Amino acid sequence: MTSVHLEQGQVTMVDREIPARPPGYALIRLDTAGICSTDLHLQRGYYGFAGTPGHEFVGEVTASDDPRWLGRRVVGEINLACGACDWCARDLGRHCPNRSVLGIVNHPGAFAEYLTLPEANLHEVPADVSTDHAVFTEPVAAACEILDQVALPDRVAVLGDGKLGLLIAQVLQLASVQVDLYGRHPDKMRLVEPLGVRTVKPGGSESYQMVVEATGSSAGLQTAIGMTRPRGTLVMKSTVYDRVSIDTAPIIVNELTMIGSRCGRFEPALDRIRSGRLILDPLIAARYPLAEAPLAFAKAAEKGTLKVLLHR
Amino acid sequence: MTSVHLEQGQVTMVDREIPARPPGYALIRLDTAGICSTDLHLQRGYYGFAGTPGHEFVGEVTASDDPRWLGRRVVGEINLACGACDWCARDLGRHCPNRSVLGIVNHPGAFAEYLTLPEANLHEVPADVSTDHAVFTEPVAAACEILDQVALPDRVAVLGDGKLGLLIAQVLQLASVQVDLYGRHPDKMRLVEPLGVRTVKPGGSESYQMVVEATGSSAGLQTAIGMTRPRGTLVMKSTVYDRVSIDTAPIIVNELTMIGSRCGRFEPALDRIRSGRLILDPLIAARYPLAEAPLAFAKAAEKGTLKVLLHR
Repeated sequence: MTSVHLEQGQVTMVDREIPARPPGYALIRLDTAGICSTDLHLQRGYYGFAGTPGHEFVGEVTASDDPRWLGRRVVGEINLACGACDWCARDLGRHCPNRSVLGIVNHPGAFAEYLTLPEANLHEVPADVSTDHAVFTEPVAAACEILDQVALPDRVAVLGDGKLGLLIAQVLQLASVQVDLYGRHPDKMRLVEPLGVRTVKPGGSESYQMVVEATGSSAGLQTAIGMTRPRGTLVMKSTVYDRVSIDTAPIIVNELTMIGSRCGRFEPALDRIRSGRLILDPLIAARYPLAEAPLAFAKAAEKGTLKVLLHR
Repeated sequence: MTSVHLEQGQVTMVDREIPARPPGYALIRLDTAGICSTDLHLQRGYYGFAGTPGHEFVGEVTASDDPRWLGRRVVGEINLACGACDWCARDLGRHCPNRSVLGIVNHPGAFAEYLTLPEANLHEVPADVSTDHAVFTEPVAAACEILDQVALPDRVAVLGDGKLGLLIAQVLQLASVQVDLYGRHPDKMRLVEPLGVRTVKPGGSESYQMVVEATGSSAGLQTAIGMTRPRGTLVMKSTVYDRVSIDTAPIIVNELTMIGSRCGRFEPALDRIRSGRLILDPLIAARYPLAEAPLAFAKAAEKGTLKVLLHR
């Protein structure tokens, strides 16, 4: 089968065996995959990654233990938990210390004709959800994770108008919060204004009870700290793979709460996508056939590019 | 009156007028004051400070609007709130944006024969509490602040065996938590072992649901992040006046909650001191007359020195 191979900064196409399907796993034939900022970070050497990347996908089950999955169009949770530890017992396999992670840690990813995932990780895509929308399930789940972690105040600032920032702004606005979205690209921010998101250019002096940092830049955290009111909450969404230099004094003097936030549950994400209220189509910047993944990666790495999709 | 003056790194003794007492304020004659790490930071230029430092004190009220305060032995909360803003209305004058702070921001401090404070800030020292113990009220309140901010798990790691770390370890241990105290000075850590605190040398691989960072060093935060379990809580206690360089990825991947923690309420601190269970006397490293404050500051700045007291 055709598969993307990522190693030492190079994206190449290789021919591999269709992966073996361990017991309890499904074999999934890829339909559509999305390139995430994490994939670009892997390309830059994060985790010393070498292998098949890709963790945002929609595919069709072609083999499984449970015959009910056969032929289903599915998305899949990316953390492969051990199922035996305390974290798994608490339904927090996303933090299982023995986990592998689809396309990131010790499990070949979705940028290939076929991938495998435990059947327990799969969610069927409802018939009325398009594949183009379903491929956003993983990043929408990451946005929804905030709802599981904190109680929202009436107004929230979201910093960053990239792929993740635009999804977070929408998810929070649809949770009956007034979102002020801070970014540098009016053309991108405008996309989510129909939902009621207020778009703001950085540089003002407003402060907030809650700030979500999703700039993806190492300067974003300090800006977010400065915008958070005393006793307020700062949700840290953007992983920056450099060391970040911050002045911690305002965190302590203002007794801020800073919460790291990563993957989320797929159910609420699929519910929101199915509602039809999320603005997703304009976030698709480009489409490439899987075989042209090297071009797709180059496109995705261009500054300001929104979601790049790969189609089998 | 005799007063300490701090400016551009120099500690000098000056003669000043006894301060005027605004309406609602008490005039307090100093008995005993404590030198805090913040005073040493002010000496190094933090806040561009120039004036009378000192915010840990015990004194006697010599003039007040309310005659019931006259002659009382008091300690005083250090934040002078405006009383008119939203924060003050919520009983959070410690975060009043218009506040001044005794000996730190826009209000002359306690290292002088006399100081003033709003009567609302005063707490009478119970008759059965010694002045030597009462002078610890402010830092014990800072330790107790943690109890107001977070729910404690069964075991907590406290990082740092300085003045604040030793108080935090005691306050948490007495809150029915098993405290593991991490520090580099066995002689200091041994002081709090009688309470049941387990003392640990850094370098192990234990992880905790809650970690309190009180090392006062810029490296402490990264160590604390590494010791906090997924979904765990890191309480940030030590203000470092340099920029701190951290790898934020584990905060996000492990979805840590980091909470800044500063001043606390005096009532629970006085209650704990009055219980007689806190080990305070061995924390007093040296005593100087107020007139020898320059020597006292030099002593306090020696690495590893615990509490240095000034006596009028």
